[in-house]
Amino acid sequence: MRYALAVANLGGAQTSPNPRVGAVVVRDGEIVGQGAHLKPGDPHAEVYALRMAGEKAQGATIYVTLEPCNHHGRTPPCSGAILASGIQRVVVAVLDTDPRTAGGGVARLRDNGIDVTVGVLEDEARALNRAFFHRVRFGRPLIVYKAALTLSGHVAANTGHSQYVTGTLAREDVQRLRMEHPGIAVGIGTVLADDPQLTVRDLGTGQVADWQPLRVIFDSRLRLPLSARVLSQRGKLVIMTTHSAFAQSARVDELKAAGQVEVLPVSEEAGRISLVAALRELAALGLNSVLCEGGPTLAAALLRERLIDEVCLYLAPKLLTNGLPPFLGGKTQSMAEAIALDDVAIRQVGDDICVTGRVKYRL
Amino acid sequence: MRYALAVANLGGAQTSPNPRVGAVVVRDGEIVGQGAHLKPGDPHAEVYALRMAGEKAQGATIYVTLEPCNHHGRTPPCSGAILASGIQRVVVAVLDTDPRTAGGGVARLRDNGIDVTVGVLEDEARALNRAFFHRVRFGRPLIVYKAALTLSGHVAANTGHSQYVTGTLAREDVQRLRMEHPGIAVGIGTVLADDPQLTVRDLGTGQVADWQPLRVIFDSRLRLPLSARVLSQRGKLVIMTTHSAFAQSARVDELKAAGQVEVLPVSEEAGRISLVAALRELAALGLNSVLCEGGPTLAAALLRERLIDEVCLYLAPKLLTNGLPPFLGGKTQSMAEAIALDDVAIRQVGDDICVTGRVKYRL
Repeated sequence: MRYALAVANLGGAQTSPNPRVGAVVVRDGEIVGQGAHLKPGDPHAEVYALRMAGEKAQGATIYVTLEPCNHHGRTPPCSGAILASGIQRVVVAVLDTDPRTAGGGVARLRDNGIDVTVGVLEDEARALNRAFFHRVRFGRPLIVYKAALTLSGHVAANTGHSQYVTGTLAREDVQRLRMEHPGIAVGIGTVLADDPQLTVRDLGTGQVADWQPLRVIFDSRLRLPLSARVLSQRGKLVIMTTHSAFAQSARVDELKAAGQVEVLPVSEEAGRISLVAALRELAALGLNSVLCEGGPTLAAALLRERLIDEVCLYLAPKLLTNGLPPFLGGKTQSMAEAIALDDVAIRQVGDDICVTGRVKYRL
Repeated sequence: MRYALAVANLGGAQTSPNPRVGAVVVRDGEIVGQGAHLKPGDPHAEVYALRMAGEKAQGATIYVTLEPCNHHGRTPPCSGAILASGIQRVVVAVLDTDPRTAGGGVARLRDNGIDVTVGVLEDEARALNRAFFHRVRFGRPLIVYKAALTLSGHVAANTGHSQYVTGTLAREDVQRLRMEHPGIAVGIGTVLADDPQLTVRDLGTGQVADWQPLRVIFDSRLRLPLSARVLSQRGKLVIMTTHSAFAQSARVDELKAAGQVEVLPVSEEAGRISLVAALRELAALGLNSVLCEGGPTLAAALLRERLIDEVCLYLAPKLLTNGLPPFLGGKTQSMAEAIALDDVAIRQVGDDICVTGRVKYRL
């Protein structure tokens, strides 16, 4: 199962909206097949593993990191493929929570006389697909908020100048982090201040990777300049805006003509896009998770609405006497308003410190 | 020498303005005497160690963490005591930089036929007395800035409410940190916001330690309320103020009557006390180092004037959507204005993270 979990990781963010799944077929102590789900529309992990095993699947055991599906989606159900293969025993790490399967895969296998074990390395399997489970459960992507800040708590100078807070190794680490997520989002303020590319690329050569996360900009008033670098990069760009801004159709057409751009209107709250509605749209676009890279206004709004699920903070060992904070929302009254982090992990990345944690909102 | 360094630590902050010194007398591989300097006016480490060795000092070696003094201060010179003792060999970790000794101790010993070795565990000995060396060299105490902040970079809510940012273990750690420094300082803003006691105490029982660092408040306009808790605590309180505020003699008398208080006027810069002048006064009061515990205005002013030498930051794994930053000075233009930290060390203290570092100002 540990090997199946490692194989499952191959698909990475590009399996989204599907889960990351790995499967290994073992007969007489020998691995005779293995497979991973790589991207939507492709065969599932079990199918690859069974194909590889061929005749050797007869009487073998298949280890699969997620309950085999039981529905016709873009591909036929895996439960059927397993039954047809001659597999005798199925070991599942964790049940699928997708309502189309949700225990149905295991039930069908058992009904057909297959020996099924569930719960082997379950925690690891749940962690591997925490984004998928999150989207299925809440109908919105897992939001990971990333920021780079000085130890004085500043993401930028007062002018907005922020290049660079952290060192090369931390910035390369961010590129790897971006590859972990099918979507990457920023507020329009960050685009206006930094003109980022929001691509996965080699920081040395500037060469962009073949696979790119979907780039998302929260831009309530469609202020994105046509000269913005996000418009000229490889990969699709989604601009989330309000219905009222979307009604300016000339502006929308102009943006669409400037690149591989989609403009999506969502409902409005006090003149700004509803973040809950926007995230629901992003789930509908197939994003299991979104890496949010600021700015302070968007971050504070997401946190206030309990929409940030995890944080990844790079702390640079330097101090500014003044500057912009990572979160900039309404005034706070008491330290008791602080929102705790759980499962905190700390590591050093070059001269910088990376702290990750899960946000633990009060009930 | 390693043992002598450990012994030297016994004196802790209370040796200030003197250095921390340990001495060990060894004859035929056996420790026959040891001593530490404990506080100003007390005998020096060498004297204690030689007293303990008595007759056994004849032909023995003395290991001492700092060059033996060569001047009559509050006590007679140690170089003379060593010569009188029959000691044959002296091993010194690091030379004294106090101009009254500065190599003179070693020279006198050598002139009298003693075998002297200098530089054993020199780096460790220099680190142990970095505060003493700093005061001797620059004429001001080593300033260690301490703050507790959330990972969102806030030391308090917008109202100033800050109790508590960190957990119990980190707050206990701060008590130990306070014992490391002969002085502890805050700005008047912090006193008005938090009404701190600024004592070393047991956080559980509230019992204060016998030895207390000198407490210092930077209060340009003498705004300290007579009801402030700092006034009713054990130990001396020094209020640094401007000459113009000091001229209101009724206010000064009132403060002096309220506790064990000294009000010290220093020169003024744009209506505020000159920090350089204030620190010079604190060195004159005998402080090798001062732990500065905020607030943001004082911290930014000290940093801007290159007066913070080290930082000790406690980071709590929690996020505020808005709040007060640890430094609040003039607006910054560029991330390049950030001041780097060197010798960064990270440790976990309960759920919190403690980052220490030496401030590395640009030349």
